[in-house]
Amino acid sequence: MNIRIVRFFLSRLFLVEAGLMLLPIIIALLYKEPFSNILSFLIAIGIIAVVSILLNVKKPDIKTLHTKEGMITVALTWIGWICFGALPFVISGEIPFYVDAVFEMTSGFTTTGASILREVESLSHSILFWRSFSHLIGGMGVLVFALAIFPTGASETVHLMRAEVPGPKFGKLVARLKQTAIILYVIYFIMTFITIILLILGGMNVFDAACHSFGIAGTGGFSTRNASIGFYNSPYIEWVTGIMMMLFGMNFNLFYMIVLGQTISIWRDEELRVYLGVIFSAITAIVISNSLNGIYDNLSDNIRHTFFSVSSVITTTGFVTVDFAQWSLTAIMIFALLMMIGGMAGSTGGGIKVARFTIANKSLFNEFRLMQNPRRVVVTKFNGKPLTEEQVTRIRNYVLAYIFCAITICLLVSSDTPDMQTAVSATLNTFNNIGVGFATAGSAAPFTDYSVFSKIVLTFSMIAGRLEIYPIILLFSPSTYLNKS
Amino acid sequence: MNIRIVRFFLSRLFLVEAGLMLLPIIIALLYKEPFSNILSFLIAIGIIAVVSILLNVKKPDIKTLHTKEGMITVALTWIGWICFGALPFVISGEIPFYVDAVFEMTSGFTTTGASILREVESLSHSILFWRSFSHLIGGMGVLVFALAIFPTGASETVHLMRAEVPGPKFGKLVARLKQTAIILYVIYFIMTFITIILLILGGMNVFDAACHSFGIAGTGGFSTRNASIGFYNSPYIEWVTGIMMMLFGMNFNLFYMIVLGQTISIWRDEELRVYLGVIFSAITAIVISNSLNGIYDNLSDNIRHTFFSVSSVITTTGFVTVDFAQWSLTAIMIFALLMMIGGMAGSTGGGIKVARFTIANKSLFNEFRLMQNPRRVVVTKFNGKPLTEEQVTRIRNYVLAYIFCAITICLLVSSDTPDMQTAVSATLNTFNNIGVGFATAGSAAPFTDYSVFSKIVLTFSMIAGRLEIYPIILLFSPSTYLNKS
Repeated sequence: MNIRIVRFFLSRLFLVEAGLMLLPIIIALLYKEPFSNILSFLIAIGIIAVVSILLNVKKPDIKTLHTKEGMITVALTWIGWICFGALPFVISGEIPFYVDAVFEMTSGFTTTGASILREVESLSHSILFWRSFSHLIGGMGVLVFALAIFPTGASETVHLMRAEVPGPKFGKLVARLKQTAIILYVIYFIMTFITIILLILGGMNVFDAACHSFGIAGTGGFSTRNASIGFYNSPYIEWVTGIMMMLFGMNFNLFYMIVLGQTISIWRDEELRVYLGVIFSAITAIVISNSLNGIYDNLSDNIRHTFFSVSSVITTTGFVTVDFAQWSLTAIMIFALLMMIGGMAGSTGGGIKVARFTIANKSLFNEFRLMQNPRRVVVTKFNGKPLTEEQVTRIRNYVLAYIFCAITICLLVSSDTPDMQTAVSATLNTFNNIGVGFATAGSAAPFTDYSVFSKIVLTFSMIAGRLEIYPIILLFSPSTYLNKS
Repeated sequence: MNIRIVRFFLSRLFLVEAGLMLLPIIIALLYKEPFSNILSFLIAIGIIAVVSILLNVKKPDIKTLHTKEGMITVALTWIGWICFGALPFVISGEIPFYVDAVFEMTSGFTTTGASILREVESLSHSILFWRSFSHLIGGMGVLVFALAIFPTGASETVHLMRAEVPGPKFGKLVARLKQTAIILYVIYFIMTFITIILLILGGMNVFDAACHSFGIAGTGGFSTRNASIGFYNSPYIEWVTGIMMMLFGMNFNLFYMIVLGQTISIWRDEELRVYLGVIFSAITAIVISNSLNGIYDNLSDNIRHTFFSVSSVITTTGFVTVDFAQWSLTAIMIFALLMMIGGMAGSTGGGIKVARFTIANKSLFNEFRLMQNPRRVVVTKFNGKPLTEEQVTRIRNYVLAYIFCAITICLLVSSDTPDMQTAVSATLNTFNNIGVGFATAGSAAPFTDYSVFSKIVLTFSMIAGRLEIYPIILLFSPSTYLNKS
């Protein structure tokens, strides 16, 4: 492996984070916070700068990145951003224990939204901002962000984006990657801005509106309120949040098509139809279940809270208006299924992704058809186009790897959870980057009381989920470093 | 589809069951039971005879069976055997409700051992015998049994055995299938006989020893005692049962190799090594967990009960000595994993099977190796021999189909279970043909109070698990009957 090129990229990518830390400093100045808060960010910036300089001592001879180096770079960039990003929490004393701070920062960048904090309203504005802002950057990808602003050539960075952008496909928008990154970010920022305006119109203050919008855009879920969106008790805010979450769970290529005026071809997108179909079916089933169990007096509350929860869970955002862990077990099972499916490929959502879920199901269905008539030629199609056997195999393997990882995480945290429902909840919650679950303690139960071991396991669960498993496994596989290639 | 050939086979296979019903009649005579018991079996025999004659009205022109017809025949044979086999329970009045009787009979033939009965000791001997005897026949396969005793040619029956014998491979023993079936059954009966003798030596009466041995051989789990093997409170019986269960979870080809004197090559079998490795690791982990949680005062009890439970669960037998649902959540998670893995291919055990589990894991590992160096040629090997891409794909698909089915069953029964642990337990319990689980009500909690809907779902769960999914899906797929091929 070419270590120098990895170091070269890391040193530049870490500096981007240092630059972003200027934003919470501005917030601290605006809200006239004590100088210790500003200092905590300044110290973090200083540490990043020193590390970056040390990493860049030896310049690389060649600047070619292969898949393996790309994945390792992505994994290390994320781990670095998390470790550095957690420093202000500790230095400011607002989250004094470093493992907790790392958990919180991981939850931020991976857009999980699970928290070790029981109480967030006492945090200072600069810290709250940094916590929520990490959703915005982590959602679209810290490397994609860096690509959009950095003057780099296209060829060596394709593997970086491949490893970071969720879903089985990527990069069909325009020929040049840098342009793609910029277009994606422009659409993303415009939609985030619209969300902020809509929330302000609902009576939210500007700071809260911004922080919640970062959470919605990145499908994160950190709130500035202990009761999350439920705090505002406003059907308008709940509908706006619910609908915007659903939009951010969609493939951003679709929005680009709208910009290009190809509105009609959007509806031909197979993944979108499955996504909307799954959402509609889940809402119908849960509304019926809630009615049968007498959870809501009127249908309008039932539909609103169900829509919000389904949208929050399938997009892996994790805002809450009600504690759906108290609904029927059938509803909880449906939520568990939605958590695994996750958002669309090319969105900011986590999980297996709708596209993979659809293709895995279709290829299974083909196996049955082949059994009915072995002489038939069966090809798995997606969006009307036939997939190669290699593509299908890759997706099936991903689903299997996903399930094996989930079972392992569940086993590792089981010593720390009171019952199976809570263990499954903690696993799906973190591994799919959701942030809410169905622990018996409640859907938004914080991870405060977990052991250090479990917190570390769940931290890796969040990173593995966000980077879609393989980069993290490669990082910890000894043979990655032994083979010379 | 060639319906006539299916009918032809069904009519002959149903008659085999009628013949087997003479055995419980002998038991009834031996124990001087009231004539009504004998009558209930005679009526069932009469009904089977009438149905068989009706099915055989039109003789088939050709006797060729394709995969599809083979699978449909297997599925219908099993459903028929279950529906007929449940008749004596209802007619004798010992299980008056037909859905319950069908559940119990399904549990018998599929070697699950889950029961709707809270209390079994009051049942008459003939009914208890029929219930346990179904394990013996169902374990090796009702069609394999019929093949062994019927004078049929080899070619048309290969698909029947393929669909019935568990695991990804079959029929390498000898060239002729009929001979294979006979050899398998001879080994099977000899081992069952040895088990009966060993249990009698432990002080069990002959009837109980026979019934329990049927359960051990078929990896079933029906007991003649409410407290299962725990009733005898005898370490000797527990060790004998534990060890014999472990042996019956092994591939029967291995015993054939012992007969041939190839003892050394057994230890080269990769699946066996994984099987023993998994058992050893699980026992170690659970013994440590039990020690840490202070479940047993002395190590000897700890090891004995853990070995028994692990052996019972991985072989999908389902006898119990203790309620392991009260052990730590980590232990329960390990049991859940063992339940999914199941016994070895070519054994009487259920689950995914050790071979498939190993191959799926190895092919995933290869995916990682390919990622580290895309130019490398990677082939998945098993037992030292390379597998074709098609074989690996088939196994990956099976694991995926298995997981999708398990999630669906879990969702369907969730309306009827108090919590997630119980829903997962009911699913794994039936789908893997185990018979014990980790319901919060206890590991051997009966299915008495489930709704009719859930009982039917779990009945199909047991059949789908035993026949390895595809036959049951084909049976219910409309396109099976529409396509002319």
